[in-house]
Amino acid sequence: MPKSKQAARANLESLYRIFTVPEAPDSTLGAIDQAICDDVAGFLGTHIVALERTLEDIEADFLSPVIPEEPTYVSEYTEFVKQKLVAQSVHTAAPGFVGHMTSALPYFMLPLARIMTALNQNLVKVETSKAFTPLERQVLAMLHRLVYRADAAFYPQWVHNSQHALGAFCSGGTIANITALWVARNRLFAPAGDFKGIAAEGLPRSLKHLGADGLAVLVSRRGHYSLGKAADLLGIGRDNLVMIDTDADNRIDLDLLRLELQRLKSENIRVLALVGIAGTTETGNVDPLHAMADLAATEDCHFHVDAAWGGPTLFSEKYAPLLSGIERADSVTLDAHKQLYVPMGAGMVVFKDPTALSAIEHHAAYILRHGSKDLGSHTLEGSRPGKALLVHAGLSIIGRKGYELLIDLGIERARHFAEQVRQHADFELTSEPELNILTYRYAPRAILGLMKTMCLAQKCQANLLLDQINQLIQKVQREAGKTFVSRTRLRSRDYGTKVITVLRVVLANPLTTDEILQAVLEEQLTLAQHPEVRELLEQIEALAAPLSISQTSTED
Amino acid sequence: MPKSKQAARANLESLYRIFTVPEAPDSTLGAIDQAICDDVAGFLGTHIVALERTLEDIEADFLSPVIPEEPTYVSEYTEFVKQKLVAQSVHTAAPGFVGHMTSALPYFMLPLARIMTALNQNLVKVETSKAFTPLERQVLAMLHRLVYRADAAFYPQWVHNSQHALGAFCSGGTIANITALWVARNRLFAPAGDFKGIAAEGLPRSLKHLGADGLAVLVSRRGHYSLGKAADLLGIGRDNLVMIDTDADNRIDLDLLRLELQRLKSENIRVLALVGIAGTTETGNVDPLHAMADLAATEDCHFHVDAAWGGPTLFSEKYAPLLSGIERADSVTLDAHKQLYVPMGAGMVVFKDPTALSAIEHHAAYILRHGSKDLGSHTLEGSRPGKALLVHAGLSIIGRKGYELLIDLGIERARHFAEQVRQHADFELTSEPELNILTYRYAPRAILGLMKTMCLAQKCQANLLLDQINQLIQKVQREAGKTFVSRTRLRSRDYGTKVITVLRVVLANPLTTDEILQAVLEEQLTLAQHPEVRELLEQIEALAAPLSISQTSTED
Repeated sequence: MPKSKQAARANLESLYRIFTVPEAPDSTLGAIDQAICDDVAGFLGTHIVALERTLEDIEADFLSPVIPEEPTYVSEYTEFVKQKLVAQSVHTAAPGFVGHMTSALPYFMLPLARIMTALNQNLVKVETSKAFTPLERQVLAMLHRLVYRADAAFYPQWVHNSQHALGAFCSGGTIANITALWVARNRLFAPAGDFKGIAAEGLPRSLKHLGADGLAVLVSRRGHYSLGKAADLLGIGRDNLVMIDTDADNRIDLDLLRLELQRLKSENIRVLALVGIAGTTETGNVDPLHAMADLAATEDCHFHVDAAWGGPTLFSEKYAPLLSGIERADSVTLDAHKQLYVPMGAGMVVFKDPTALSAIEHHAAYILRHGSKDLGSHTLEGSRPGKALLVHAGLSIIGRKGYELLIDLGIERARHFAEQVRQHADFELTSEPELNILTYRYAPRAILGLMKTMCLAQKCQANLLLDQINQLIQKVQREAGKTFVSRTRLRSRDYGTKVITVLRVVLANPLTTDEILQAVLEEQLTLAQHPEVRELLEQIEALAAPLSISQTSTED
Repeated sequence: MPKSKQAARANLESLYRIFTVPEAPDSTLGAIDQAICDDVAGFLGTHIVALERTLEDIEADFLSPVIPEEPTYVSEYTEFVKQKLVAQSVHTAAPGFVGHMTSALPYFMLPLARIMTALNQNLVKVETSKAFTPLERQVLAMLHRLVYRADAAFYPQWVHNSQHALGAFCSGGTIANITALWVARNRLFAPAGDFKGIAAEGLPRSLKHLGADGLAVLVSRRGHYSLGKAADLLGIGRDNLVMIDTDADNRIDLDLLRLELQRLKSENIRVLALVGIAGTTETGNVDPLHAMADLAATEDCHFHVDAAWGGPTLFSEKYAPLLSGIERADSVTLDAHKQLYVPMGAGMVVFKDPTALSAIEHHAAYILRHGSKDLGSHTLEGSRPGKALLVHAGLSIIGRKGYELLIDLGIERARHFAEQVRQHADFELTSEPELNILTYRYAPRAILGLMKTMCLAQKCQANLLLDQINQLIQKVQREAGKTFVSRTRLRSRDYGTKVITVLRVVLANPLTTDEILQAVLEEQLTLAQHPEVRELLEQIEALAAPLSISQTSTED
């Protein structure tokens, strides 16, 4: 055999080996696999947020755009992953990581995710997913029932109906929200007479058909940014996503909403949908869903509820009433990778009307044939993994009562923490936790007292300085890597339409204790002793000084 | 302590246990984890396609829409998964499963996917992904370079540029194609003067701004169904996705394309994009990319190439020239879960112009701030898992040369199999494999000979009967569960515009051998002996009978 042919054969053999499951766990690959299992366990056991290296520093390990010519040993690559990636990732499961919507995962998700990966099913069609298709349909039915509580007679005819689907499974809440508005749009512009419908004719002709000058979606200013993407993507335009100001509790202001609806009518702009929020991303508040459902009924428009965060509150007998009215929504978004504690990449949208998704139905000759039960004919995405298994596992293993405990725990911990913040002389609670999210800021009572004496311009200036202080505290705390809170910008009820920087805490990790939260505050107090912070505080005091001098002189 | 409080505490404790990594592998959860690892290995080791139970039968295990009230033991649930799900899933990795774009996975993907799941990073922003963000940016650069071969000086300024991204990572090719056309649409209607751009103003006003009566996307009839979804979603309308007929080799007919471009111009319809296909889903053919790039330049429109399937052909020095011209595309879709051998749910789109994605840029106050390196500001999806790790692992461990071997193997095996089909007296090759996909049908030479003597109406009738035969063979073969080929409907070069049913074989699994392919054909020959098939063949013969009698008499 010529040498080049020998080499080619040797390469092929090593390739076959890569694609073959090692027979014994003590083979090289088997041993590496085991070592990784152990290592992940060890990694997840250390409950600290990652130590900070600057991003620029980390980037140095990921610079080359060149795909390596030669293969690398798995062991060598694994070492690289451990050193350069795992050690430099964010411990989203750490109980002190309370800044984003992440949590510790139930441990059973790991082996089950492994099964899912190994089976590598493709949910776009039954031919490549088999039992996973009925499984996903069942999961959609379970969540449909959680939201809509249809009676027992409803489900048997719809769960495995080849013509319809009770909802769409997708990679996350963004796709879920887009799917909901896509369905709403295509139902509004359904085929009628000569008009073939928007799916065929497009938006410009559809508007003409309806005799409308525009199309609008209304949501509160706390609406998720995915709605802006949806308005852009669907051809509606971000200008036509009307953001309504909120009341003092970050809920949509119904009077302003009614005014906008009148304005739109007078401008001949058709309302496509009202979007209610059940758990705003930044403050965890819930819109007045019943009142919005009433308005949607009057306007004859689609009512969508974005419950990506708050949906699982429905598991709790005590707190489900906070979401009252959600059962009147035409569609509801839920994110399984949030409070269903499923690994990243699992969203859903369920529809009250089991025929609603037909508005976006599509077919193809080699798959998704008419009459098949292929789920791909009703989803925005094409090929999709079997993530529904992990949702099914969570619902089964944790159970309704288990999720109830998790929900109750988070809400009650948030209320307790809010009380701590409220009573603390150096912090200001900037939004009450309705669910399990709250915001606050470092703002010593003495400073706030001074600010009360200021004119509006001075107050604004003082708030800008407080913004800087809170940004600094948040940044340094993140970089120290022990705990993590996020920050965002909110309108403050006390400063009119001005926006202030606040710290944001999300309490969904059951391993987060009151002690950890106490430590978060203490660390922030320590950081507030930093000379830079002190100097900014002095600047605020200086702002007030002329006024307080004049006040003093008046009192004299 | 009252009994209910005791019960609540007991429940809480079991909840904490669920969220905690077991310390010893011999704990209950640790043992189950290990058992599942072993079991997956065992399952993947048996290389047969799943035994068929009817879907209705399987559905009986997934009927209840009720979320269980009480928790289930992990061990009990795992048993359910093994019996009801794993045993009833499709062995997409089986070497005899050659009907869809699935393959065996490189084994190292399993432990690395476990790391990814355990770390549960969220790539929407650096704060929840850290090193995974530079990693994903590097992967995008590697694939950008694979496609565009920009010189070494190009990459350092773009790979980790906070203002831009060389591409977007997403859940699959559908989102990638939608993203590409979304970018193209928003670039065509960019802000200018008083016009704020389509992202803000929407499609109807944008069309007016441009003074056009419509918007069109052109692709060959072999275009993926995701393009129809994109046309619908983006408000363009499916009627404006102009599907051009193909030549005898399933490539876009350039003359017809030119005619359509002329027609659109005469109707004042603006061409948004031409879409070339590098590896059609059904037949694996590649459009004339250079000629299409020329036309796109003349039309001044976006040129997108859907290389979800064929892209990795670029790894092969020998076969990369088949995709010549792809480097002239404005955007290119690639699917990592296809020929990069990554588990389901990993797609990408790369853009020639590193500033192109700015057209869909979006921001939010609590994340995705201006100037951050957050990848979420340039993606359609929001929260996303760290799948880029698995692409990076494949590129590193398999290497360019490893992928080259895989590509060469698939193409050469397809050519070899095509030769076998061509020479076989009972099969007809219906599309030549340009890459590693081919189609054929059961159509004995004697029958085809008879059909040559038929009038067109008879030929059509005969083809309908052959369609039935091939559907039957495909269905029974799938149900038998030993091997699997898919079927689709194609225009046949021999029957004018008529569409015929063909069997489709995709050769991307390196464990598929020539012997297995031989066995696929033999099984089909056995199935063709079925009385039902025989009867259908007799019906074709009967169709020809009157003609052959008259022929015979003429010859007399």
